[in-house]
Amino acid sequence: MKIAGKNYRSVWPLGEDAFGIIDQTKLPHEFVTLSLRSVEDAAHAIKSMQTRGAPLIGAVAAYGLALAVRADSSDDNLARAAALLNATRPTAVNLNWALKRMTERLHNQPHRGRAALAWQEAAAIADEDAAMCEAIGRNGFALIRDLATEKNRKLNILTHCNAGWLATVDWGTALAPIYMAHDAGIALHVFVDETRPRNQGAALTAFELGGHGVAHTVIADNAGGHYMQAGEVDLCLVGTDRVAANGDVANKIGTYLKALAAKDNDVPFYVALPSTTIDWSLTSGRDIPIEERAPDEVFQVTGRMAGGTLATVTITPPGSLAANPGFDITPARLVTGFITERGVCAATQEGLRGLFPDAKK
Amino acid sequence: MKIAGKNYRSVWPLGEDAFGIIDQTKLPHEFVTLSLRSVEDAAHAIKSMQTRGAPLIGAVAAYGLALAVRADSSDDNLARAAALLNATRPTAVNLNWALKRMTERLHNQPHRGRAALAWQEAAAIADEDAAMCEAIGRNGFALIRDLATEKNRKLNILTHCNAGWLATVDWGTALAPIYMAHDAGIALHVFVDETRPRNQGAALTAFELGGHGVAHTVIADNAGGHYMQAGEVDLCLVGTDRVAANGDVANKIGTYLKALAAKDNDVPFYVALPSTTIDWSLTSGRDIPIEERAPDEVFQVTGRMAGGTLATVTITPPGSLAANPGFDITPARLVTGFITERGVCAATQEGLRGLFPDAKK
Repeated sequence: MKIAGKNYRSVWPLGEDAFGIIDQTKLPHEFVTLSLRSVEDAAHAIKSMQTRGAPLIGAVAAYGLALAVRADSSDDNLARAAALLNATRPTAVNLNWALKRMTERLHNQPHRGRAALAWQEAAAIADEDAAMCEAIGRNGFALIRDLATEKNRKLNILTHCNAGWLATVDWGTALAPIYMAHDAGIALHVFVDETRPRNQGAALTAFELGGHGVAHTVIADNAGGHYMQAGEVDLCLVGTDRVAANGDVANKIGTYLKALAAKDNDVPFYVALPSTTIDWSLTSGRDIPIEERAPDEVFQVTGRMAGGTLATVTITPPGSLAANPGFDITPARLVTGFITERGVCAATQEGLRGLFPDAKK
Repeated sequence: MKIAGKNYRSVWPLGEDAFGIIDQTKLPHEFVTLSLRSVEDAAHAIKSMQTRGAPLIGAVAAYGLALAVRADSSDDNLARAAALLNATRPTAVNLNWALKRMTERLHNQPHRGRAALAWQEAAAIADEDAAMCEAIGRNGFALIRDLATEKNRKLNILTHCNAGWLATVDWGTALAPIYMAHDAGIALHVFVDETRPRNQGAALTAFELGGHGVAHTVIADNAGGHYMQAGEVDLCLVGTDRVAANGDVANKIGTYLKALAAKDNDVPFYVALPSTTIDWSLTSGRDIPIEERAPDEVFQVTGRMAGGTLATVTITPPGSLAANPGFDITPARLVTGFITERGVCAATQEGLRGLFPDAKK
């Protein structure tokens, strides 16, 4: 996608001993890129959420592992680096998936070829993610186009958190169909949930949609139910960090509340994902680990002051505690369907297996 | 209630030509009181939310009208002042109720006695509100006590926005039973929804509960559904700005989402209110006007910087729009019951009529 006319992905190689990312903690206020030169750099970038989004952290972890292999191609170091990266964030399964794929690819390979092989494999993971997201975009586009034909007026789509190109290598998951529909001239408007406590909606999704010229309105996380009751939402479209084999969806905290409201008001609720986000080993969402993040994210908000400087303010009284679960589970029964790189399916075990009969448990 | 050992109400007379309020826009960072000397002062304080909460703005409007009558006791001025106050906020019905009661009391009274009469009537409205909230506290206390006996462990109660003593003249609606249960030694803990965009939960409810020594945890508005799924919420308890005759509830934006989650997880969802919040003239919540507030409340967050100074930061990119509905409607079907000054009843027309057979439509 383009920033000020220049094409960007959310992760890119810099020669063969470093790679670049956008520092997403500075958006939408400042556009800063970072060069990561070691597996420790990569682990820090994922943990601190300089880079985030389930598909993207898979690709970043792959590049991070490739840097580790370049420094020391031993099996021990490979295992140590994979463990370091895998411990950064617990909920998104893409991280674990990418590390397993990298490890399997390198295992039993001669040491002197490992560094180059790792770099190629990381690049392949990144390229495949971009291609999967583009395919998700096409499949979701058909859904939006049909809905627009049916409604015969401007569509209103609600999204939660950021599942755009900043959350993937390129295109995005939930936002890819929106970009394609917009580019095809379909009139649409997006309600952007702010997504406290880290405001990925207000900061990242609004930044992406604004950059692409898509009409959007930022709303408090509290407001989506009201707009659904008022008939002002035609479609909910979100991403996910992990889907269990039965179709239960882990996604950014608050997704479950929007899915409940969608169900209560007969608004279709779709989840867009590359198949790398499916955890075939889990029979239900109950087994997905939910990351508990720092209470400071609830106590504080960062933004820019009138002069443009970034500042952090505390909103709670001294002495109050906070809790900060990063994700919640939306039961499959609340999900209308999945939009994947292979097509759209029901949010059931059968639906998923129908599209991915070849997936290994 | 007490602030640093001193008893406060949320509104109090200052002689007979001014009254005091707490500037709630400065909490929890600074405790500032304001003296209001004219009906214009009162209208400004309500509109800017220096004073807020459905029951409280009824009492503040009554005092504001009394100041108008002191300045000019004519029928014309009375009508003008009532219209000015009534236009400040559209959703809470207590404002309209208090203005009607004041106007009916003064109408046909000799002009020279009107000022004193108005002051007395405003004081009566305030005293009655405090007494109603105390009775709500007792009635809700019984409910909490029974639940604590049934669960036989520490209770977890979730509340949204601020329905404490700062939202009423004293005691609060949803928080009154919590204070009484805490004082009676019942072990409880409160999940406090932050309540974006104005953060009344993080700012006011956390301040109140902390001041009273009640254990509490501030959470993002997105998180309550997750805790209900996890079985960590025993009871939801909220206030309301207007209840229609059929039991539909207007309350702070986001209440509907929590009510949906409570229903989905069999968590009892109670709404606490004085009968002055019931609008007997409306057959359903569909007819309750929803206030649309300034987009700046979504774009910006105010808090204190490390040094203690208050600052406002912008979280969205330039060019993004925002929408800001202040309230939503929770359908009666999602409400377990109402806690009123006369007891607890079902959230139905029959339930309400059973407790208030004498109420005028």
